[in-house]
Amino acid sequence: MHKVDLNCDMGESFGAYKIGNDEEILKFITSANIACGFHAGDPSVMNRTVKLALERKIAIGAHVGLPDLVGFGRRVMDISSKEAYNMTVYQIGALYGFVKAEGGIMKHVKPHGALYNMAAKDSALSKAIAEAVYKVDPELILFGLSGSKIIEEGEKIGLRVANEVFADRTYTDEGTLTSRKQKNALIKDADKASTQVIRMIKKCKVTSIDGNDIDIKADTICIHGDGTKALEFAKKIKQDIQKQGIKIEAI
Amino acid sequence: MHKVDLNCDMGESFGAYKIGNDEEILKFITSANIACGFHAGDPSVMNRTVKLALERKIAIGAHVGLPDLVGFGRRVMDISSKEAYNMTVYQIGALYGFVKAEGGIMKHVKPHGALYNMAAKDSALSKAIAEAVYKVDPELILFGLSGSKIIEEGEKIGLRVANEVFADRTYTDEGTLTSRKQKNALIKDADKASTQVIRMIKKCKVTSIDGNDIDIKADTICIHGDGTKALEFAKKIKQDIQKQGIKIEAI
Amino acid sequence: MHKVDLNCDMGESFGAYKIGNDEEILKFITSANIACGFHAGDPSVMNRTVKLALERKIAIGAHVGLPDLVGFGRRVMDISSKEAYNMTVYQIGALYGFVKAEGGIMKHVKPHGALYNMAAKDSALSKAIAEAVYKVDPELILFGLSGSKIIEEGEKIGLRVANEVFADRTYTDEGTLTSRKQKNALIKDADKASTQVIRMIKKCKVTSIDGNDIDIKADTICIHGDGTKALEFAKKIKQDIQKQGIKIEAI
Amino acid sequence: MHKVDLNCDMGESFGAYKIGNDEEILKFITSANIACGFHAGDPSVMNRTVKLALERKIAIGAHVGLPDLVGFGRRVMDISSKEAYNMTVYQIGALYGFVKAEGGIMKHVKPHGALYNMAAKDSALSKAIAEAVYKVDPELILFGLSGSKIIEEGEKIGLRVANEVFADRTYTDEGTLTSRKQKNALIKDADKASTQVIRMIKKCKVTSIDGNDIDIKADTICIHGDGTKALEFAKKIKQDIQKQGIKIEAI
Repeated sequence: MHKVDLNCDMGESFGAYKIGNDEEILKFITSANIACGFHAGDPSVMNRTVKLALERKIAIGAHVGLPDLVGFGRRVMDISSKEAYNMTVYQIGALYGFVKAEGGIMKHVKPHGALYNMAAKDSALSKAIAEAVYKVDPELILFGLSGSKIIEEGEKIGLRVANEVFADRTYTDEGTLTSRKQKNALIKDADKASTQVIRMIKKCKVTSIDGNDIDIKADTICIHGDGTKALEFAKKIKQDIQKQGIKIEAI
Repeated sequence: MHKVDLNCDMGESFGAYKIGNDEEILKFITSANIACGFHAGDPSVMNRTVKLALERKIAIGAHVGLPDLVGFGRRVMDISSKEAYNMTVYQIGALYGFVKAEGGIMKHVKPHGALYNMAAKDSALSKAIAEAVYKVDPELILFGLSGSKIIEEGEKIGLRVANEVFADRTYTDEGTLTSRKQKNALIKDADKASTQVIRMIKKCKVTSIDGNDIDIKADTICIHGDGTKALEFAKKIKQDIQKQGIKIEAI
Repeated sequence: MHKVDLNCDMGESFGAYKIGNDEEILKFITSANIACGFHAGDPSVMNRTVKLALERKIAIGAHVGLPDLVGFGRRVMDISSKEAYNMTVYQIGALYGFVKAEGGIMKHVKPHGALYNMAAKDSALSKAIAEAVYKVDPELILFGLSGSKIIEEGEKIGLRVANEVFADRTYTDEGTLTSRKQKNALIKDADKASTQVIRMIKKCKVTSIDGNDIDIKADTICIHGDGTKALEFAKKIKQDIQKQGIKIEAI
Repeated sequence: MHKVDLNCDMGESFGAYKIGNDEEILKFITSANIACGFHAGDPSVMNRTVKLALERKIAIGAHVGLPDLVGFGRRVMDISSKEAYNMTVYQIGALYGFVKAEGGIMKHVKPHGALYNMAAKDSALSKAIAEAVYKVDPELILFGLSGSKIIEEGEKIGLRVANEVFADRTYTDEGTLTSRKQKNALIKDADKASTQVIRMIKKCKVTSIDGNDIDIKADTICIHGDGTKALEFAKKIKQDIQKQGIKIEAI
């Protein structure tokens, strides 16, 4: 029987600033990636989000990002591997404090934004992140772009990994995401997104923007929670997956 | 046999900015309070400082501060108890990440600067900090101003506490530190400082600035490490304590 | 003929985070207080907000706050007068850059949040802020709580001042705002708010929460722009004021 | 008669953190590039540094950097041209506040660290920076790597520019600085540095690391002020230049 995890980024509010519909999206997902105060989130938001996720029995992960709040962690920064290691340890630890305070267990780590994309292509950076995760807790699961460098490095160091795919993004022949700067980067039709996701789960294939069949592994699907449309999109995809007899559960 | 712990604040450098002589002061102390990135410190500094302390077998503690890097955590901020709780959990967790990555154990938590002084007088704030420490790890020892509110609240919640005294500061009749705004706040003579500290350890007494004998408990002595004089001061006090047959060890 | 200015805080978004309805509220006001990156706002938001205000010919002011983004500048911080002076000069200058780049003129300065309330009661702090404003540009108008210390200090140094009153807040016998921690701090009924404001403008009187008549000067009214209700509230008050033959214009 | 400007980065301290010997280096230079709070500096440091420079009649410039305090603005960040424009306007404005408050005049702008290097190669980024400078004040002089894109874009928009050369850095055949990652990036011998600088001023030539003669324009020389050696180095170079009859003055 096929199975898949549905994950979503959350806890991205900051002080007086609100982003996302965390309470709503938690109804649809099995894993929550919680921001740790570098690209988004603050201690109070982290506390609240950890409690929410634990109440709903959603698996909790640290969403580690670049130290760039004003850029939301989406701007590439030329950090060293050592810096990547240290900022990953710091952020996992910070979230771990809240999880432990509530008697919960942290399950996974997922790099955010520019760090996610940088790591997907960069073995040295990925190795540093994987090492940070492993040294803090070797039971943690490392989430990363399906088939990318971070998956390789996570496996090498001895971590369990989760190949992440996107319902609403198109893929290149190399199995990477089409850049958001290109017009055809996003899939806005929920049916198309569902079809793509189900094929990735069942057949381990995706059709690239150039029409070629690409091998891909789908352990977890990234769901977006910001905006009413995102919620409907998430709901629809979840229903379609379930109709196909695919089990949805945390890794 | 009398015994006492010698603690020092460290890991206070930040990025390109250096403060303190961590490697030197580590030779004199038994407990290191490591900054966690709010009032000082950054992930790279924390990693380096944790490693240094573990190499020297010095007990490691989280030095939690207010989110005020430019003010070095020394400016009173009117934070809520909830905010105090959350920033304490966050910072303990962040340091915990580095300690765990190196296979070490975190031993204590000490509030820094304005947070330290605010907590000494404020039961609600102290309770929030104590609760944060307890919920993250009930084995942690809470350091605070000897005989102050944070010691009370730490004990109430079930934590081990360490009454902290200062070698180079004078005391009021209430057993609090004389404000730094007053001229007689500091003891600059190393002999006087030694005498005060030894009396506090052996007799549980200190003479206030008004000449009265005050009860005081001295579980741990705060040593300052910044500047050549501070190092000599620390060395002298340590030697004098040892000559008195007082054992110096972590709590 | 009576006249009054309507001002609103704006440019409070930050990076990916949005707060307020700046474009909408600009239709109702004559003075815009633009956040300068300390308690809210960032360089991109400041640029956008300055352009919007200039397009609509709304008077532009610097809304200077404490360096506390996560607390939105609403937490009292024990800053020195020197620090207050320096952070005021910095923020006025930063906004001035955008105003000058667009060929506009900056008209006023208003402290924000905790700094506003602290200055209202503290002559030394107010003097430092007033001096900062005066030294950067003696033509700037200083906005502050009607009849408070900052008004006094602004006048002493030779600045034009604007006594600010609130439509939706109640007053104590001392002419200060009732603390938000008290239940009767806010006026939620738009009619009551209008009545209070019109009486302040025409009669220079306000009824305190204890039922006494207090002298008050109303040069400018603070309007809030966050939320649909706030917009309706602002619209209603503006209409009521105009019906009374009071001219609404920038100072 | 040949002439040249000597500039130095300063005002890089932050809160309790000290960097540099600003008071000492001011004796040797004619232009001071003052950090504006993004990569280094804070409002109090800026105030103090502006006053120092004005007392010594040293030309003041804004040293604008990336928003990366922990990385000291030395890490490349993938910012947009719009963001570069806005952060430049903001920082010039902030420093301008202090200069105006003291009755001084700001003379120049120089990008710092990674922003300096990025701009040297990137016309779009340079254009954005040049536009920011021009729109805030068209009288400002734009400092940048000699012969690089930012010099081109500064001239295109109508700014006066200053071609900057380095005494202690070697050059490639393309006229760019040898990367610090290479061993031969630095010139540690003061005589060699003097010789290189004097030839650049008088002959507009420099010998590349590959032994070729490269055209170069030297309007201003960057002097480093951190450390005792840097001061001696600066002193020596200044004396050697003066012995050659080259006049040292601000642009």
